[in-house]
Amino acid sequence: MVIRDKIFQSIITVFKRHGAQTIDTPVFELKEILSGKYGEDSKLIYDLADQGGELCSLRYDLTVPFARWLAMNPNIQSIKRYHISKVYRRDQPAVAKGRMREFYQCDFDIAGTYDPMIADAEILRITTEILDSLDLGIYTIKINHRKILDGLFEVCGVPVDKIRTISSAVDKLDKLPWEDVKKEMTEEKGLDPSVADKIGDYVVKKGGNELLSELLKDERLTSNESLKKGITDMCLLFEYLTIFNVLPKISFDLSLARGLDYYTGIIYEVVTEASAAPASKAKGAKKPKPVVESSDPDADRSNDDTIGVGSIAAGGRYDELVGMFSQSSKGGTPCVGISFGLDRIFSIKKAKMDEQSVRLNEVDVFVMAFGSGLLKERMQIARTLWDAGIKAEFSYKVKPKLQAQFKAAETNGVPFAVILGEDELARGEVKLKELGLPEGHPEKEGVTVSLENLAEEVKMRMAVNAMDGLLIAPDELALNRQPDYLDGTK
Amino acid sequence: MVIRDKIFQSIITVFKRHGAQTIDTPVFELKEILSGKYGEDSKLIYDLADQGGELCSLRYDLTVPFARWLAMNPNIQSIKRYHISKVYRRDQPAVAKGRMREFYQCDFDIAGTYDPMIADAEILRITTEILDSLDLGIYTIKINHRKILDGLFEVCGVPVDKIRTISSAVDKLDKLPWEDVKKEMTEEKGLDPSVADKIGDYVVKKGGNELLSELLKDERLTSNESLKKGITDMCLLFEYLTIFNVLPKISFDLSLARGLDYYTGIIYEVVTEASAAPASKAKGAKKPKPVVESSDPDADRSNDDTIGVGSIAAGGRYDELVGMFSQSSKGGTPCVGISFGLDRIFSIKKAKMDEQSVRLNEVDVFVMAFGSGLLKERMQIARTLWDAGIKAEFSYKVKPKLQAQFKAAETNGVPFAVILGEDELARGEVKLKELGLPEGHPEKEGVTVSLENLAEEVKMRMAVNAMDGLLIAPDELALNRQPDYLDGTK
Repeated sequence: MVIRDKIFQSIITVFKRHGAQTIDTPVFELKEILSGKYGEDSKLIYDLADQGGELCSLRYDLTVPFARWLAMNPNIQSIKRYHISKVYRRDQPAVAKGRMREFYQCDFDIAGTYDPMIADAEILRITTEILDSLDLGIYTIKINHRKILDGLFEVCGVPVDKIRTISSAVDKLDKLPWEDVKKEMTEEKGLDPSVADKIGDYVVKKGGNELLSELLKDERLTSNESLKKGITDMCLLFEYLTIFNVLPKISFDLSLARGLDYYTGIIYEVVTEASAAPASKAKGAKKPKPVVESSDPDADRSNDDTIGVGSIAAGGRYDELVGMFSQSSKGGTPCVGISFGLDRIFSIKKAKMDEQSVRLNEVDVFVMAFGSGLLKERMQIARTLWDAGIKAEFSYKVKPKLQAQFKAAETNGVPFAVILGEDELARGEVKLKELGLPEGHPEKEGVTVSLENLAEEVKMRMAVNAMDGLLIAPDELALNRQPDYLDGTK
Repeated sequence: MVIRDKIFQSIITVFKRHGAQTIDTPVFELKEILSGKYGEDSKLIYDLADQGGELCSLRYDLTVPFARWLAMNPNIQSIKRYHISKVYRRDQPAVAKGRMREFYQCDFDIAGTYDPMIADAEILRITTEILDSLDLGIYTIKINHRKILDGLFEVCGVPVDKIRTISSAVDKLDKLPWEDVKKEMTEEKGLDPSVADKIGDYVVKKGGNELLSELLKDERLTSNESLKKGITDMCLLFEYLTIFNVLPKISFDLSLARGLDYYTGIIYEVVTEASAAPASKAKGAKKPKPVVESSDPDADRSNDDTIGVGSIAAGGRYDELVGMFSQSSKGGTPCVGISFGLDRIFSIKKAKMDEQSVRLNEVDVFVMAFGSGLLKERMQIARTLWDAGIKAEFSYKVKPKLQAQFKAAETNGVPFAVILGEDELARGEVKLKELGLPEGHPEKEGVTVSLENLAEEVKMRMAVNAMDGLLIAPDELALNRQPDYLDGTK
């Protein structure tokens, strides 16, 4: 929970920097709202028992409840909202892989009718700010556009009724070689091999601006309306992403097909080195070991540990989902959003941290005594510290052993001990000891402080320690930074 | 959500000051864990549909899941834990009264085998710190002891099988006159009127130390073992509460019977003036209007708006609940805890706040432009501000109207506007304007700032405003404080 709370705080800080607010929706929705939104995965929805009244189900994600909420509140024409909460899937749990029946999702969405690609660009900027602040290592934002993909399939000659299923085959290119994907298209899905080859020429392409230019020069592509619209969007997006300094993280990847049917514009997925394929798969194993998997190959995979290169965030533009719940004839509010896979981020973060260094509580001072216990005196001093806003605790025993008190403080990594002795107290004094000082430090055995100065003295020392922490941080940063002369630009 | 988050933060700050950590338990528990724990209110439990696998129910409170978790983790012999999360009750909702089927509970509990009343005293200290920090107005902590109450009923001659039902009649004394309670005891519940009168002599008593002394002098009472143990506990608790400066808030109230069967020691309930009885009841209406109420008269009432004087927090010691889930023959860990009724606290807090002053987001700067829109320039400047950690937004239109941009900033109470014009930009400058300055203020029309100093300038002005806020706060405090010479102690 300590690590999780830190991750939440990092993410929320970024959301707030971009003017986001949070909303809360109930953990259950009407069953009918959820049904028909997740394809075959609807069987993973938890239903509540029929105990009278409306039939309800537990939410499966945070996107459908958000869209339902927007539709029910037509006065809200625009909002930047984040929502960090749990969702429920009646899946086979795999605890070691981080696949749970109850897990957190963290969604950020911008709803509103705006000029093209501006909000889309800000979502991607937010994504880089979050990933940079979480310090998860090198990452790439793979990006594509539904209109480009659909146009591409049209141009290559995929029959309309096969577009979605061929799209989901293409989406497997991140973990399977082209030959396997082609086999799936032709043998399993009955696509003409020549059509598959045409697709193959395109979907292996990835890059940046230069790939956009290449596509723009291909008249076969630009003559397709859908493709042309998609490429225009991408060109504009790339301009905005350059301003936002996001382009260096972007890989325009024609094989990215992604999830749910409701996407209508750009789609994206974030992969990190830390979330790369397990060794057995990277070494060329042709097919991933079959596990109980989501039956919908297009399903959101940001929390799916079974895939080769796991994404830690994913999303896209969905302009028509709100309209599905709306009573209004005008249609619903267009939206673009991203969902962060918190459990995967948590796993990466946890693996990078020294678990010994994670403190379970934040106590600053442990108030202890030797000899007769001095319970009431310890309580009095704890009260003084609390009154001053200092985090303090003491043993709930009348006569605790000194050893046990030190152990309790050390186990929790408490930085200071206030030690009471009868003689010192008679003089109106206590001993203040900074724990964990090295042998030979002049204050290793603590300093004597008068009772009336205790809270002030503790606060002063906490401030000094906090300053020391700040002084160390920039040095550490410098060690990780390349010297300017290696940069090549100078 | 903004107000709710502030309340959460205030409460969590206090919990952390006392060394608490948080845990998370699933929203569903095995059905068998919950059944038989809530008496007749078990019918309010939401069950999940039987879709194969274990039968589960949604949690009804946070206490039973905590006890179950402690029993499943016997290595955890002691913990101070808080948990703020939602619970579910299939009750008749009454939205205006804040009674929902899904609502937040905020629990703090100390588990562990300690010397008597020390942890109990700290819970009550935490309660006062939270209520003081929430600034809800005058409040009282009503306190009693299950052993005193049970002993009292024994001494008065209540048959053992009637103790619980008589106890729940006594608990109504906060909203009904004694005559009505007596009638319920004798006519409805068949108690001998002379026994009822004996009870009546005691349960109307409330006070502090002097009441304890009075009970101690009553030999009829102290000869009862249960009563004697309870009074000994209370004497010790009052000593500790004096040290913690909590005693001024305490009312030892022999009519407090409280809730669930699992309490074994002290019990308490916090009432505020703001949560006092509605006028119709206070004016002597004999019985509260019958509404769909929890069928168990002993049920937790901290979230029940239908009662006369509503409590905003309640709890007690429960030493045997964990043992009910424990496999060990040693019995379970003793616990003492409190649950805050967040919905009621929210209602009180919301009523006290000027809703206009609640900002929906925390944006510091709105970046705007007139004339040709200057979208890319606005984006560039927003990026500069984000890079500096400043919360900023801009309109997602290519050519927004200046009026609309100002309106967006003002609606959200954004303190600063950065205004772009082509001439200023050509000189490498923008206008920085503090919004809401009074007419005639020398900077009412804004100041010109060079682009490279913009982030610094904004930060400096934000810091000045924050300092002004700090300078105002102590003055406001002083206005609410009695001058020393009225204090009487000088």
